[in-house]
Amino acid sequence: MPPRTSFSDTSFSDTSAFTERAADLDTQDPLAPLREEFLLPAEVRSYLDGNSLGRPTRAAAERLGSFAVDEWGARLIRGWDESWFELPLRLGDRIAALTLGAAPGQTFVGDSTTVILYKLIRAALTAQPDRDEIILDAGNFPTDRYVLEGIARDHGMTLRWIQPDPVDGVGLDDVEALLGERTALVVLSHVEYRSGHLADLPGITAAAHRHGALVLWDLCHSVGSVEIALDTCGVDLAVGCTYKYLNAGPGAPAFGYVAHRHQESLQQPVQGWMGAADPFAMGPAYQPHPGIRRFISGTPPVTGMIAMESMLDLIEKAGMPAIRQKSEALTGFATELVDVLLLPEGVRYSSPRDPAHRGSHITVDHEDFGSVLPQLWKQGVIPDFRPPHGLRLGLSPLSTSFTEVLLGVETIRRVLLDVRDAR
Amino acid sequence: MPPRTSFSDTSFSDTSAFTERAADLDTQDPLAPLREEFLLPAEVRSYLDGNSLGRPTRAAAERLGSFAVDEWGARLIRGWDESWFELPLRLGDRIAALTLGAAPGQTFVGDSTTVILYKLIRAALTAQPDRDEIILDAGNFPTDRYVLEGIARDHGMTLRWIQPDPVDGVGLDDVEALLGERTALVVLSHVEYRSGHLADLPGITAAAHRHGALVLWDLCHSVGSVEIALDTCGVDLAVGCTYKYLNAGPGAPAFGYVAHRHQESLQQPVQGWMGAADPFAMGPAYQPHPGIRRFISGTPPVTGMIAMESMLDLIEKAGMPAIRQKSEALTGFATELVDVLLLPEGVRYSSPRDPAHRGSHITVDHEDFGSVLPQLWKQGVIPDFRPPHGLRLGLSPLSTSFTEVLLGVETIRRVLLDVRDAR
Repeated sequence: MPPRTSFSDTSFSDTSAFTERAADLDTQDPLAPLREEFLLPAEVRSYLDGNSLGRPTRAAAERLGSFAVDEWGARLIRGWDESWFELPLRLGDRIAALTLGAAPGQTFVGDSTTVILYKLIRAALTAQPDRDEIILDAGNFPTDRYVLEGIARDHGMTLRWIQPDPVDGVGLDDVEALLGERTALVVLSHVEYRSGHLADLPGITAAAHRHGALVLWDLCHSVGSVEIALDTCGVDLAVGCTYKYLNAGPGAPAFGYVAHRHQESLQQPVQGWMGAADPFAMGPAYQPHPGIRRFISGTPPVTGMIAMESMLDLIEKAGMPAIRQKSEALTGFATELVDVLLLPEGVRYSSPRDPAHRGSHITVDHEDFGSVLPQLWKQGVIPDFRPPHGLRLGLSPLSTSFTEVLLGVETIRRVLLDVRDAR
Repeated sequence: MPPRTSFSDTSFSDTSAFTERAADLDTQDPLAPLREEFLLPAEVRSYLDGNSLGRPTRAAAERLGSFAVDEWGARLIRGWDESWFELPLRLGDRIAALTLGAAPGQTFVGDSTTVILYKLIRAALTAQPDRDEIILDAGNFPTDRYVLEGIARDHGMTLRWIQPDPVDGVGLDDVEALLGERTALVVLSHVEYRSGHLADLPGITAAAHRHGALVLWDLCHSVGSVEIALDTCGVDLAVGCTYKYLNAGPGAPAFGYVAHRHQESLQQPVQGWMGAADPFAMGPAYQPHPGIRRFISGTPPVTGMIAMESMLDLIEKAGMPAIRQKSEALTGFATELVDVLLLPEGVRYSSPRDPAHRGSHITVDHEDFGSVLPQLWKQGVIPDFRPPHGLRLGLSPLSTSFTEVLLGVETIRRVLLDVRDAR
């Protein structure tokens, strides 16, 4: 925390100290040069929604154009043999090595997050036929809860709901209170999509295993911004999004992780040709492909995967430890700014204050934020709105500058005051 | 059929009459100018695999590049509200109107063909809880069979297999022989992926309905090349591919069709936020969105959908009747060429001879085709290989010229003779 008292009664015009500080932080940021690798259109003055949709890299924009001409258009069907058929596993292995702390052969890229959640949850249940409970969290991302509700209904499972603290999220105690010999699976988010709370992945995984349950971690809001060690922690299953901190483009396919030890025993429900031992076998004869490929179902979404590679190049260049360090510095700086510029105006800080316990976004709440948002967008300041009245500031480490954060929070303050004055 | 006798003993060097004829056919082809709308790299001298992966349009190639800059990069998260959220339904309605003979509000674009098959088959079974049989065809595309095997295993259904004629495919009689009061669903392909046989969609649909069963048609190998009338025929469910005759790019998302009358009563298993009445509802409260949207699960694969639009523009310009007419002319010409140039060399014709009974591809078989294929690829002639020894000539109506077909078949003959001579 900075010496906040000196700013606590600061009026809007007195933020020059912050301006200087933001500039210093940018100058000292070893990752700052990588920001130039992204498309940074001038009209987007402050992008605070990298946790929802990451900016494109310049390389991705070029690659998408050349892909259509040089790969799809020129190689045509030969592209499948030459590279596309292996792309879901090659990209999966790269994501695993760079961001998941996972050895090769355990990660694939494929369907949407929702569909992979469905497939892996169903697969997990085949390993535990005598257990009929799934632990989940009422604050988890809606699609996770919706998928689980459908599976529980269709397959006679009982959902055991954690009611987490809205800021501090799901704790180890919350999970331990529900774990038992009936627990088949625990499904939680690594970083909570609203508060940004970072769950105790190692502790909760170990606790579940002590009770003989499996764990599926949703990494959508952590992968690419928080260090993850799936193999070391003995995680069973995971799913994650590539269009947030992996900057792969709107609706880019998600990835799934299945630990080696489970691959041959888990049966996934959506048996498709691309996960078969022989994609063109005749007759009634589905045989799953050995290893992780069996969790793939249909034709890999090649065009949707094209933009992924260039961001992985940048992550490789920076390394996850430096990325996490910058993420903490960004959310730390944003927290300072919120404390000084927004809390005095009645805004509430709705995220964990300890950077070790949060991901790369923070959420602030105010009843007027619904009216503030359209004005912000018009001024090129783009945070995320979370109903009923939260603004989520998602600070994608490689593409966000400290100056951008300051400009964003200053503008939120100014528009909030304008909206109030207009009443 | 043309006067074939005049060519039946023609040697390879005597094909100048064919050259002239191909040129005439191209000159008279009212759709020929549209071929210039596709990327036609010179090294691909004859592309005969449009039924597997359609060529990119020039507009799609440009759009993919500009999409990253002008839409993803500049609009960022605002793109969802501005257009992407509705894209799966807007494109679905366009596909429906232009190619499916279906009214708006019944078609969505989303997951892979395999995943949509899974979701719609599972949904169909919820409508028929007292019926436990599914009719399918042993010659259907592998992923259809694999998906059905998984569902049958997991949900206690019995699969009733049709063993279709390898050339003439599934007939009405084949289906009627298995239909009964236990039949919940019939799952067939409209056009058979090997022989190209065009099934009797209206007759089989009506027969299934007479027995109280639902029908799901796989339109992957027909949509965009064969006229389809889903609404008029009273089809219940359909799924189709967009990377074949809809030229949307490798692994582009598939579409699903659910007739209006079934939408509120069918329950699909992969409940996700994008199919929910409220994508951000709190608590345990999945409510399906009214109408077709409930069949969507996860985040729409926007980048993968971008290339679709420009091909739909061309289909709109040409109209399906003219497209079908050209398709028949192309496969008719290919058939003539095969008869004269390939059958004398021991090649077998493995498709229906009546154009009214086939889609836009034909298959020819020869034991040496496995060895012929790599040579063809090297020479820029690209058919599809279907194990064990079939060459499939897929003639995408808008992007294929008659001259291209001639060049392809001539090259197949020459390489086949070379391979034989080399032994």
